[in-house]
Amino acid sequence: LSRKDEKLKKMSEDALIERMKVLLGESGRGVAVGIGDDAAVISQPRCELDTLITTDLLVEGTHFRLDWASPYQIGWKSLAASVSDIAAMGGRPTAAVISIGVRPRYGDYFVESLYEGIRACAERYGVTIAGGDTVLSEKAAVINVALTGTVARGRAVLRKGARPGDVLLVTSTCGDSAAGLHILGATDGNRKNMTPVMRDLAARHLKPEPSVEAGLAAAASGAVTAMMDLSDGLARDLPRLAKRSVVGAVVRATDIPVSPELAAFCERMNPIEYDEKKELFELPYYPFELAMSGGEDYNLLMAADPDKADGLISLIGSLGIPITRIGEIVPQSDGLTLITPDGEPHSWPETGFSHF
Amino acid sequence: LSRKDEKLKKMSEDALIERMKVLLGESGRGVAVGIGDDAAVISQPRCELDTLITTDLLVEGTHFRLDWASPYQIGWKSLAASVSDIAAMGGRPTAAVISIGVRPRYGDYFVESLYEGIRACAERYGVTIAGGDTVLSEKAAVINVALTGTVARGRAVLRKGARPGDVLLVTSTCGDSAAGLHILGATDGNRKNMTPVMRDLAARHLKPEPSVEAGLAAAASGAVTAMMDLSDGLARDLPRLAKRSVVGAVVRATDIPVSPELAAFCERMNPIEYDEKKELFELPYYPFELAMSGGEDYNLLMAADPDKADGLISLIGSLGIPITRIGEIVPQSDGLTLITPDGEPHSWPETGFSHF
Repeated sequence: LSRKDEKLKKMSEDALIERMKVLLGESGRGVAVGIGDDAAVISQPRCELDTLITTDLLVEGTHFRLDWASPYQIGWKSLAASVSDIAAMGGRPTAAVISIGVRPRYGDYFVESLYEGIRACAERYGVTIAGGDTVLSEKAAVINVALTGTVARGRAVLRKGARPGDVLLVTSTCGDSAAGLHILGATDGNRKNMTPVMRDLAARHLKPEPSVEAGLAAAASGAVTAMMDLSDGLARDLPRLAKRSVVGAVVRATDIPVSPELAAFCERMNPIEYDEKKELFELPYYPFELAMSGGEDYNLLMAADPDKADGLISLIGSLGIPITRIGEIVPQSDGLTLITPDGEPHSWPETGFSHF
Repeated sequence: LSRKDEKLKKMSEDALIERMKVLLGESGRGVAVGIGDDAAVISQPRCELDTLITTDLLVEGTHFRLDWASPYQIGWKSLAASVSDIAAMGGRPTAAVISIGVRPRYGDYFVESLYEGIRACAERYGVTIAGGDTVLSEKAAVINVALTGTVARGRAVLRKGARPGDVLLVTSTCGDSAAGLHILGATDGNRKNMTPVMRDLAARHLKPEPSVEAGLAAAASGAVTAMMDLSDGLARDLPRLAKRSVVGAVVRATDIPVSPELAAFCERMNPIEYDEKKELFELPYYPFELAMSGGEDYNLLMAADPDKADGLISLIGSLGIPITRIGEIVPQSDGLTLITPDGEPHSWPETGFSHF
């Protein structure tokens, strides 16, 4: 996919979700939170836990390419994306049902490797595969994961709830997966053409690790007022949290956490980017641009009560998970602001970056 | 799809489900019943209800064709198939998450009509649409439904549990949907080329009505030892129930319930089938063959305690739902037997019929 297609796709998805809310209703009997959050919350009478449910559809050509990723990696990632949605609610993933549309020409190897990747991810995150549906799909392989989770009754952390004055935090680092995607595109997935750092970044794209422990700790802390996972990049995802919470935000670009691998990759690429690599890479590589515009890092964005933020940072840090303060929540009337590395405030670049 | 492809597909699905059990495990933490039943059963501590979950993937070209079915009908049917799985466990459907892969050339009309069909089915069966995922799929539209349901703790009715001596029952009628599919194929979905009876049968295929009330009554009665929905036809589905229950069965072909519409259609078609219709229809139309080999009727197959079967028949009948005794459960060593209309016992035709 070109970046333009990706952009159109995302804009259209937000529009479709809005339309879906109108057509299908935002919530209903027993559903405390419906369409528009990372996962839905289902409350049952006489039950101490709420059930979370989320679904992700991956289509060959749109979400994965078999020349870049192995079926094992595709299997892992398809479940990981849903695990991240449960994590983003502060929940614990429990059981998944998996639908697979198989192209006959791919044969048994595809299905078995895909299942192995799904199983590995399920074991890593304590998910039971409860069932599924396997069908023929002649033209494109498809995988759908529907995943349930649990959270203490009424304690799911939503996208709404952030208040002006709250501290804005992200776990782990941003932009690795986006860099990995560019590297896969530039090398056609050929590992021989990748440096060790490039392979690390490609692996972050192909085998992401959702932040279940951080999400559970955040929910248990009582400090977090709103939370979501960064699946489409900070540039597109922060406006979604802000919209649901009816707030604005200020983010300092230089505070967005970037991995040493991403920094090293950008440093190495940029001197030569307009030279012999010009045709290979379509974008210059600035870490903070990738960190803003990149998707699929599956780390968590949180708004936290300012009085409790230090305790939260210590708690998450004690689990060995990096957590970084990147800005603050402000009133909605102040909008969304990005302080760029030159110290200037800019209105928010909703669809990612060009060069400024 | 030709009948041969359909057959290969079904055989391959059973093989894939067996392989999936090996690769993914039959059940796990909190999952009382996993892969291989109509829906999985998830038990949570300190909760009076068990959660059921099922998923169905529909792919354009494999499961639906837009020249035969409207997006509204496809939407209805995609949810109805999952509702039927919950009904087959004796459960009440609650919340669904819906994934849709949209071909850009179909535009808004496709998505909106699809949603309307989904919503109509959701309202009919008391389902809340809790969320979803809408993505691009260039080559084939896809719809995945994952549906949860509830059932009293430990009271889900499984495919296993039938015992020799149990009475074998089916609700409603068999074969209507299969006849409808043939009619759609023969007329290319053109209603002008259909008689009123043909239109009725096509509607049974396009807008099926799952048997939730019958399933709830069956579970509440305590009379039913095993149950499943007929989604692939009696010929293929009864062996699945028998295998899970480790039993055999005897079915009398003349007792399989057939609708007056199906009988009328077959009566009208057969005199001319080897004449000018020969190229139009590839099969002769005997009601009982369609009733055995046809899929997607979404009625229920039940095994019932012989001492309680009469009470069950009265109970279901009092709801206005036809229910018919078609045979008995026998020991596994006696295998599966079909008594054909000529009174002769035959070994079971697992993949549907040729002419005998």
